[in-house]
Amino acid sequence: MQFSSRLIEDAVNAFAGLPGIGKKTALRLVLSLVQRPTEDSVHLARAIASMRENIQHCITCGNLSDQTVCSICRDQRRDKSIICVVESIRDVMAIEETQQYRGVYHVLGGVISPIEGIGPADLNIDTLVQRSTAPEVREVIMAISPTIEGDTTIFYINKQLTEADVQVSSIARGVSFGGELEYADEVTLGRSIVARRKL
Amino acid sequence: MQFSSRLIEDAVNAFAGLPGIGKKTALRLVLSLVQRPTEDSVHLARAIASMRENIQHCITCGNLSDQTVCSICRDQRRDKSIICVVESIRDVMAIEETQQYRGVYHVLGGVISPIEGIGPADLNIDTLVQRSTAPEVREVIMAISPTIEGDTTIFYINKQLTEADVQVSSIARGVSFGGELEYADEVTLGRSIVARRKL
Repeated sequence: MQFSSRLIEDAVNAFAGLPGIGKKTALRLVLSLVQRPTEDSVHLARAIASMRENIQHCITCGNLSDQTVCSICRDQRRDKSIICVVESIRDVMAIEETQQYRGVYHVLGGVISPIEGIGPADLNIDTLVQRSTAPEVREVIMAISPTIEGDTTIFYINKQLTEADVQVSSIARGVSFGGELEYADEVTLGRSIVARRKL
Repeated sequence: MQFSSRLIEDAVNAFAGLPGIGKKTALRLVLSLVQRPTEDSVHLARAIASMRENIQHCITCGNLSDQTVCSICRDQRRDKSIICVVESIRDVMAIEETQQYRGVYHVLGGVISPIEGIGPADLNIDTLVQRSTAPEVREVIMAISPTIEGDTTIFYINKQLTEADVQVSSIARGVSFGGELEYADEVTLGRSIVARRKL
């Protein structure tokens, strides 16, 4: 790209460093900022810098947080006896969205994946095992993606938790609600028949 | 979306205000910034704020510029006798990319579009007419999109320039280079037959 302005070029390159944003998209974003009031750009810039400089990982659960301990762990109304283990903050948000869960979380930061060079030591597993030994903890729910890596991670964590006096469970897997049977993939459909439940 | 962090929420909302960026994409961008060094976010924030606060429209051609007069208009090697009229800075960049043009530009800021409520007064047409009366200007090239709105704009500007002593031309329209004839749309193909040139 030929830029006649250095300012535009710098901003485009900075945007284009973000995942999924190419140079053309970056230029579109920058030109849209030019067309809007200066305050919009200043607000965006401040939100980015302030977020990155002040964000921390909750020392209890590993969730992203504005404070040392995250708002979910701080919340007195949440049930501290149930810990839901997830891969990322995105999963925390997805589960919170359902409004079906009142326990607390533990964010692993990924799943065990030998291909990508991610071993158990790279994830927040030790802290989970430590938390799970606390007398108030009764159950650990594994809400991990139903992939080979996810299953490996569940298997590994389950083994680590044999010492702790907790019930380990996994979220239900089967055909999606609202989905049509004929469009379900065969593995999911097969397993959901094997794992059938009494009505 | 349920955010457990206010900082993340603010940053996501700021990103989601940009065109073509939804909340999910915004969250992906914010989380990728969290995973990278703080300097990356600070650099992005600075590039955005500095760009918006210091960018200006060139007083001569309307192009975006770091200074009062843009780098193209300042360039002594550019031929000031030819003005290429374009809709936006994006078109300036596209033409510069070709390295086939050594004249200067005039950025209209859009095309006449009664449907979108854009009239001649909303565009940089007056300044173009004024520029074109200068004795050094010999030719005005219309490099406007071949749409109904574009043609209307060309027609209007051409009429305004009858007083000025300049040659008004339009970029060539026809089948694309490297394209196959059978895939060209019929209007383009039809017109390119009518506008055939001697070899």
